[in-house]
Amino acid sequence: MELMEIGKIAKEMKYELAKLSTEKKNQGILAAAEGLERDADKILAANAVDMENGRNRQMPQGLLDRLLLTEDRIHQMAEGLRQVVALPDPIGEMLGSTRRPNGLEIGKRRVPIGVVGVIYEARPNVTADVFGLCFKTGNAVILKGGSDAITSNKAIVESIQRSLESCGLMPKSVQLIEDTSRTTTEKFMKMNEYVDLLIPRGGAGLIRTVVENATIPVIETGTGNCHIYVDETADLAMACDIVENAKTQRIGVCNACESLVVHEDIAGAFLPMLETRLRAKQVEIRSDSRAGRYLKESVPATEEDWGKEYLDLIISVKTVSDIDEAIRHINSYNTGHSDAIVTTSYDHARQFLDEIDAACVYVNASTRFTDGFEFGFGAEIGISTQKLHARGPMGLEALTSTKYIIYGNGQIRE
Amino acid sequence: MELMEIGKIAKEMKYELAKLSTEKKNQGILAAAEGLERDADKILAANAVDMENGRNRQMPQGLLDRLLLTEDRIHQMAEGLRQVVALPDPIGEMLGSTRRPNGLEIGKRRVPIGVVGVIYEARPNVTADVFGLCFKTGNAVILKGGSDAITSNKAIVESIQRSLESCGLMPKSVQLIEDTSRTTTEKFMKMNEYVDLLIPRGGAGLIRTVVENATIPVIETGTGNCHIYVDETADLAMACDIVENAKTQRIGVCNACESLVVHEDIAGAFLPMLETRLRAKQVEIRSDSRAGRYLKESVPATEEDWGKEYLDLIISVKTVSDIDEAIRHINSYNTGHSDAIVTTSYDHARQFLDEIDAACVYVNASTRFTDGFEFGFGAEIGISTQKLHARGPMGLEALTSTKYIIYGNGQIRE
Repeated sequence: MELMEIGKIAKEMKYELAKLSTEKKNQGILAAAEGLERDADKILAANAVDMENGRNRQMPQGLLDRLLLTEDRIHQMAEGLRQVVALPDPIGEMLGSTRRPNGLEIGKRRVPIGVVGVIYEARPNVTADVFGLCFKTGNAVILKGGSDAITSNKAIVESIQRSLESCGLMPKSVQLIEDTSRTTTEKFMKMNEYVDLLIPRGGAGLIRTVVENATIPVIETGTGNCHIYVDETADLAMACDIVENAKTQRIGVCNACESLVVHEDIAGAFLPMLETRLRAKQVEIRSDSRAGRYLKESVPATEEDWGKEYLDLIISVKTVSDIDEAIRHINSYNTGHSDAIVTTSYDHARQFLDEIDAACVYVNASTRFTDGFEFGFGAEIGISTQKLHARGPMGLEALTSTKYIIYGNGQIRE
Repeated sequence: MELMEIGKIAKEMKYELAKLSTEKKNQGILAAAEGLERDADKILAANAVDMENGRNRQMPQGLLDRLLLTEDRIHQMAEGLRQVVALPDPIGEMLGSTRRPNGLEIGKRRVPIGVVGVIYEARPNVTADVFGLCFKTGNAVILKGGSDAITSNKAIVESIQRSLESCGLMPKSVQLIEDTSRTTTEKFMKMNEYVDLLIPRGGAGLIRTVVENATIPVIETGTGNCHIYVDETADLAMACDIVENAKTQRIGVCNACESLVVHEDIAGAFLPMLETRLRAKQVEIRSDSRAGRYLKESVPATEEDWGKEYLDLIISVKTVSDIDEAIRHINSYNTGHSDAIVTTSYDHARQFLDEIDAACVYVNASTRFTDGFEFGFGAEIGISTQKLHARGPMGLEALTSTKYIIYGNGQIRE
């Protein structure tokens, strides 16, 4: 289907979706969950085609693993949808109301954004996830997945559309752009007339391409060069636990720790303790020369290391003379995602919370908690690293806008 | 100064500004207000240069009037700054906090956005306005005004910088890009490393250019094709008052009414009444043929008229058979700014509020109230017609972001 046609349909859908009751929306999502499980065979057959193409094209093992669907993964997708059903519907909430001296009553109501576009890579589970979150918030959605997952995505979207239709809801609430060419993607990013918001989900390259080319408002998600600063007053055992957890509990994620900053006064006591722990997990250490003196094995860090999101078993280590230097260093190299301090000093904790410029700033905890589920939102559409609209983990509310509704009785402006 | 240098300085400033107390910030804004009045002669002399250049270049009278500064207008700029001092400081407010089952305490704090860029046309008063709003919210600001106002803008920014310096505050909290060339402006719009938010203030052409070229997140402001729908149950005298007010009270503004939608059943009774009122104010009417039958003088409206922001003594008139047709028409042609219904029907009022997709939806009141001051915000940085971050009149809060601050005692993720 023509891209413009998809846009027009989505725009029509948004008016219908905005009118749906919570009950109807939940009914649609539940039907989609059941449909995915019922259509598992079809979806797996479609996925097998993508997997074979991927193997023929020598796709790396990590990507193949993300592309792969199994009976169990389809069940997880369905369970994810059922969880969204259980969440409260944010649409319609009144965010305050005032009566002006002239008698006008001005209220602010939470409404859907309208049409949400999502550009993502070869992870077919995103297809179902995004549908659930957008449908729950009354948004029409246009999906543009990676070309490597196109057969799987088609099967998933068709299944969802059939389920919606079966309960009398609009199947075109979710649409997939089947033409995954670059030209089409570039046009999609400029469809301001039809699309209200664009969310890129994927690696740094994808996000940069969208930020640089889109004229539609974008929420930037994802990249995380997260730091942990171990203060001279830190409980060193706690610091070891936190750094080890943030670095190694899962390495390919944006809230993993990529850089350690250590106060020089405790570097000698702390780094050998930590090295033992990190070595046991095969972590490579890249350090400045001062830190290198306390480490048995470490590679000298280059300027490039300070700004690097490794997503790997590597950590950079920087020593500093005081908290001001630590804060300056972190603010220079972080990506505004998540940074933590380990300290027993009340003043240092407060200063770090105040002065670090990031979506999430922690005292005495692992950066791995930056996550919609861990924050108690019950869902996550991504983690925003920009400052507009939403910052940090985004739950359902990030998919809403507001409108002012004004009740008068003939007021005119003097 | 080099553009990159300006960006770097602004980024340094943002960390300092984020730390300033409300008292210090108010002190700076008050000093700037006094400074502008003290420097009035210098500023007027600079403005005379711009005015002469403008006249030599045959600038239209309307633009010359916007460019002109007088003693009184400088006083108004200073008064505007004093009003911002009187407003509460939104920075530091806690927007809720939760304790998670694992003991993590997660709070959401209101913080400055960081570096705000503003691109505007030849209105030198915007220079002082924007400084006040940004300084109050702890944001560093980079201004790019129109080339026609460059001498005036330089004088105003220098005056503000001197005032800040005199009370020990950072003069470079506000910086002006003196090179107003197109190449520099295009580079400015892509300085994502240094600028967190870009706000275009001006006509539709400027806004489109920024939306199309910026890679920095933009808040789209301004254009308004506002509709008033007069329902078949309307109080016709009230409808006349509201339409006349919204069309004629001030014509060059984005919240003026540009299009009237009338139910066919009352068109015969209402349009002749309204025509008398609008003729008295020299308003030209462009109508569909059904409406034309009830009007003494009217030009046939073309398709182009329905989508047009006239900013002039012209109104388009469209007849409809029911409220559904009215809502469809308005949602097709509005700019998402402000639309109103005049009705005595409870159900129609409710349906209109629910289904019109605009920042501000009115029942029985003039669209001219869409304004930060009229809404009680005490200030206005613009009126957002997009759905992200801020929608409708933007007060100080629109210049803020949030960050999560998380208190732990050693939590790691399992």
